[in-house]
Order: sequence, then structure tokens, then C-alpha cells
Amino acid sequence: PERLIDNVVKFAHKVEKLGKDDPRRIIHSIKVGLTLSLVSLLYYFRPIYGGFGSSTMWAILTVVVVFEYSVGATLGKGFNRALATFVAGGLGFGAHHLATLAGDKGQPAILWFSIFLLATVASFARFFPGVKARYDYGVLIFILTFCLVSVSGYQDDEILELAHKRVTTIIIGCLTCVIMSIFVFPVWAGHDFHNLIARNIEKQADFLQGFGDLYFGTKGDTDMSWLHGYRSVLNSKTAEEAMANFARWEPPHGKFRFGHPWKQYLEIGAMTRQCAYRLEALSNCIIPDMKEPSEFKKIITQSCMEISIESGKGLQEISSAIKKMTYPFTVSAHIMKAKNAADDLHTALEAVTLENTNILEDVMPAASVTSLLI
Amino acid sequence: PERLIDNVVKFAHKVEKLGKDDPRRIIHSIKVGLTLSLVSLLYYFRPIYGGFGSSTMWAILTVVVVFEYSVGATLGKGFNRALATFVAGGLGFGAHHLATLAGDKGQPAILWFSIFLLATVASFARFFPGVKARYDYGVLIFILTFCLVSVSGYQDDEILELAHKRVTTIIIGCLTCVIMSIFVFPVWAGHDFHNLIARNIEKQADFLQGFGDLYFGTKGDTDMSWLHGYRSVLNSKTAEEAMANFARWEPPHGKFRFGHPWKQYLEIGAMTRQCAYRLEALSNCIIPDMKEPSEFKKIITQSCMEISIESGKGLQEISSAIKKMTYPFTVSAHIMKAKNAADDLHTALEAVTLENTNILEDVMPAASVTSLLI
Repeated sequence: PERLIDNVVKFAHKVEKLGKDDPRRIIHSIKVGLTLSLVSLLYYFRPIYGGFGSSTMWAILTVVVVFEYSVGATLGKGFNRALATFVAGGLGFGAHHLATLAGDKGQPAILWFSIFLLATVASFARFFPGVKARYDYGVLIFILTFCLVSVSGYQDDEILELAHKRVTTIIIGCLTCVIMSIFVFPVWAGHDFHNLIARNIEKQADFLQGFGDLYFGTKGDTDMSWLHGYRSVLNSKTAEEAMANFARWEPPHGKFRFGHPWKQYLEIGAMTRQCAYRLEALSNCIIPDMKEPSEFKKIITQSCMEISIESGKGLQEISSAIKKMTYPFTVSAHIMKAKNAADDLHTALEAVTLENTNILEDVMPAASVTSLLI
Repeated sequence: PERLIDNVVKFAHKVEKLGKDDPRRIIHSIKVGLTLSLVSLLYYFRPIYGGFGSSTMWAILTVVVVFEYSVGATLGKGFNRALATFVAGGLGFGAHHLATLAGDKGQPAILWFSIFLLATVASFARFFPGVKARYDYGVLIFILTFCLVSVSGYQDDEILELAHKRVTTIIIGCLTCVIMSIFVFPVWAGHDFHNLIARNIEKQADFLQGFGDLYFGTKGDTDMSWLHGYRSVLNSKTAEEAMANFARWEPPHGKFRFGHPWKQYLEIGAMTRQCAYRLEALSNCIIPDMKEPSEFKKIITQSCMEISIESGKGLQEISSAIKKMTYPFTVSAHIMKAKNAADDLHTALEAVTLENTNILEDVMPAASVTSLLI
């Protein structure tokens, strides 16, 4: 029993941490609970509104599947679901009608073949990268709805009534989700994405500003963990792409107007990653010899420190400019200073050295990020 | 109309390419089509087997949602679905029964509250990274089933019959998927994963073996595209983790026995990525000065070429050893040679130079990969 209590305590701490890291998670969970119980109330409206009967099920199903963490994801899924249901319902009804005309013998054969054909083609479509990224869920629902409608053994007019009810409940489900996610403590994917990009650049700025001190040993070995903050950037590609996808679904909100250039965010992200690869290479040089600085090292110390600190400051500027969405006026000054220091270094040395080339290249992405911001 | 034809031709080429890149995609699509039409036949079995009636729907729904590209993914989803349906069905029935006892007034309140509570808790559980990775789908189905069962306005015994039918059809759906995916042209995620890891290492070996020639300009500037094959490794983390997840669901097959160490594959993958970051830094040094080799460059040419080629050969060995699942006996020889060359370089130079440090560090991951293979 002691071990049990131990585990329970551990679990509670985990839950607490998860909630503290991002309190919006708790709010989101409560939102899902509320929406679901709201929708399930539909069932009790039977006497007033003709009654949806067992079609209420579809509203519940829709809410469970469509409600996502961010507004963009919810909108995207809701849109996919509504459109796919509508189109597939129409097609399925057509197939069913056609099959009925073919008589009792032909009907199963036609239906069977049409399901086979449609499912095969649609499954293949899911392999297209473009479809996969934005419409994967829609295609799934498309196959599903088509099968359900065309196979159901009802008469044509029965189907129409059923379809009417289902489409209504699905749309009610979608709308409830969308309204809840937009108007009750919304979590904007675009907003998160924006901050993520800015924070990633900031992490690199931190690294660059601290790198000089560490490498040249002018400061004692203190806490190193902040140094590797930039490492999360290395593997952020998939997350960034997903967020950009969601962000594109979102309506204008706050400082993000319609047609916000999310694609450029991806480009900045890619550059940030390029820069992170270089930082990774740089940070690998820190550990080896910390004790006695060689003659060579002493020569380069001054300029290298300056390059690293100035490019760090430049990145910092860029990051805060992105956050505030202003033009980073002072960045070019920092980059100029870094470039000058690099030139000094160049003249001081004949041979190209490790620190020099790498940091020079670090300045380049910084410069291009700036130019991207226009 | 000409433009239309143009677009159609373009589209056809795209489809062709997609199919040629991996013919298993076409087979997979046909498999989905077949499975779906098979399951929809259930509907016609009405007279023989008491009839599933509208419950056939659930079999179709299951197939559409559960059938995935690889065996592991299908098994994982099928397992999630079956288990979640079963547990949630039981809980839902309990809640429904309890609510019935509370009388006409209390029933809606209890149901409403239980749905709210369960949906909130379950939604929150989806934020746990462990749950998210393996049981995300199961939790979704759990919420769904619980809502459907507890809200349905049926009598207790009606529910039981309905639940029986639904569970049967869902299990039929899951089984059909699993059987189709395992026995008809299976796509093993584990197999793909294994090859991916080996191929990634091979790409790096290619790069290292070609790097020397390019950097020191002993060979003319030929086709460069093969050189950047390793770039796909940089962002492969998410894909690798997903594959490892799927692979863990798969039963033993071929040369992969039960309890295959997929986790170690992930570690090798992480090391390969570390190595790729360094290669990225190296490849950035290729472009700048191709023309006149400096005095300094001439000194290091010999040893650097040897380091790069020997570590390339070492990686090649490792890659083919992984492919064949044998112990790479000859690798240590290559690594020794590379290390010797590095020592030569060290003695030849006082100052630490770019090529030296980076390649030295390249040898390290190669060595650790070897040791991981045991």
C-alpha cells in the first residue's frame, strides 16, 4: 500500500506539472466536457423539435472527433467533416438510386463495385502529401459516409429523411465545437506559432551571447542548461508545419489579419534550424579543452567574443521585433559590428579557423532573417 | 481546354510517380477497397445470421478508421478501438443503470454530470505524452462510446442487445482489418524502420567518402545531389518515433523476433542525427574557396582525406551490418585507421583546425554506433 500511495503522489505531481506548464490544457478539457454534455442535451429535446432520435448520436460523434486543442485545428476538422459528409452523401445517394434502377439482381453488384472503386481511389488520394496535410480527415469521412449511405437498405425517400437528420446533427455538432473553441477561452494556433518562432530565435540569441564566455573561459563554469535551449529547435520542423497548417484555417484575430504570411514563418523556421545546426557544431567545441588557452586562442578571443555577442544581440532584436511585429531597426547595426569584428579577425589570421568560419556563417542567417521581415 | 489536358497529364504523372516510389501504396489502396466491400457484404447476410441491421454501420466505420498503411499501425488502432469500446461500454451501461435507479428527475442530471466529468478527465489524459503517443485514439473512442451508451434512451435490456450487436460488429471490423493487413501483402512498419535506419547511415557514408574529393578539389565539380542525401536525416525524428511506435505493436515476423530492441534503433537514429548536424556544418565549408588551395590546406589534405574516407567506410560497414543483422567485424579496423590519420594530423599541426576537429568528432558517433550494436 505504501508503494501505491507513492505512485499516486507521483501521478498527482505529473498532473500538476502538466496543468502548470500550460493552464489552457485544463480549460480545454473542461470545454470538451461542457460541449459534449450540451450536445447530449439534444436528445432530451425530442418533444419540442420533432426529435432527432438516434441521430443525436452523430452530433456527439462529431463533437468528440472534431473538437481539437486549437481553433485552427477545430475549424479545419469541422470544415473537412461538413464538406465531406455533404459531398459523399450526395454521391452515395446517387449510387444508391442508380443501383435501385438496376433491379434486384444488379443492385448489390453495382453497390459492391462502386464501394470498392471509391474506397480504392480515395485511399490512394490520401498518399498525396498535399491531401495528407490538409484533407486527410475529410477523405476518411468521405469514404465512410459514402459507404453508409449507399449500403443502407432503405428506400430512396427514407434515405433522404435520414440524410437530412444526419446532416443537421453533424452541422449542429460542428457549429457547437467551432463556437465553443472560438468564443470560450480560444487557443489560437497562429498565436502559439508566432510565439514559438520568436522564442526559438531568442534561445539562439541566449546561446550566442553566452558562448564566448564559455568557450574562452572568461567566466567560471556555471549552469549550462540554458545553453542548450536551442536544441529543441533542431527537431521542430514537423511541429511547425502542423501549426502553420492550423493557423491557415483560423479567421483573423487580434494582431493577425487576414492572409497573414504563415508561409514566411515556415521559412524563418527553416533558417532558424539551419542556424541551430551550426550552433550545435559550435557547442561541440566547448567541452574539449577548457584549461590552458593556446597562443592561437588568445589571438582570436577578442574578435570572436565580439562576433558572438553582437550576433546574439542581433538575434535578440529580431526575436523581440517578431514578437511586437515591428521592423527591427537596430539589428543592422549589430550585424555591421559583428561583420566588422569578423573582418578584424580575418586580417589577424592567415589561416581560416574554426571559430571564424562558423560564426561568420552564423551571421548570414541572421542577416537573411532580417531581410525576410521586410 | 488545352490547359485542362495539360493539367490532367501533369496529374497523371504525379499519380504515376507516387505509385512508382512505393508500389505498396497501390496495393494498400486496393486492400482497403476490398476490405470495405467485404464488410459491407455483412449487410446482405441478414436472413442467415439473425441480421445485424443497422449495426453493420459500425463494422464499416471501424474498417474505415482502423485500416492503416502498416501492420503495426492497424494493430495498434484495432486494439485501442476494441479495448476502449469494451471498457467504455461497460462503464456507460453502469452509469445508465445507476441513473435509471435515480428516477425520472434524477436521471438526466446524473447522466449529464457523468458525461461532463468523464469527457473532461479523458480529454486531459490525452495531454500526457505517453498516452498521446500510443493511446490517443483509444481515449477518443472511450469518450465516444461512453456518451453514446449512457445517453441512449433505451431500456437496460435493449441496451444490452444493442451493445452485443455493436461489439460483435466492431470486432468483426477489427479482425477483418488485421487479417487483411497481416496476410495480404503486409507492410511491416518494423521492416521499413530497420531499412530507414540503415539507409540513413549509408547516406552519411556516401557523403563522407565523397567529401574529401570535393573539399580538396581533387575531382571536378560533378553532380552534387547525392551529397545532400543525408539532409533527410536532419528532420527524421518524428517519423522515426512514429515508426518505432508502430513496430512495437507488430507480432514477430521474418528476422524480427519477439521483443526486438526497437528502442535501440531510436538511439542509433538519434546518433545518426547528431552526426548529420556535423556533416551539415562540414558541407557548409565546401562552397567558399574551391580555387586556390592555401599552403595550410595542402598540409592537411592527406590526413583529412584519409579520415573522411575511412570513417565513411566504417559507416558503410555499419549500415550493411545492420541490414544483414550481423556483427560488423571490420569496422574497428576502419575506425583505427581514421584515428591514426587524425593523430598524424594532430602532430602535423599546432593549432586546432576546422577540418580536424569536425572530422574527429565524426569518428566518435561512428564508434558509439558500433558499440551500440554489440
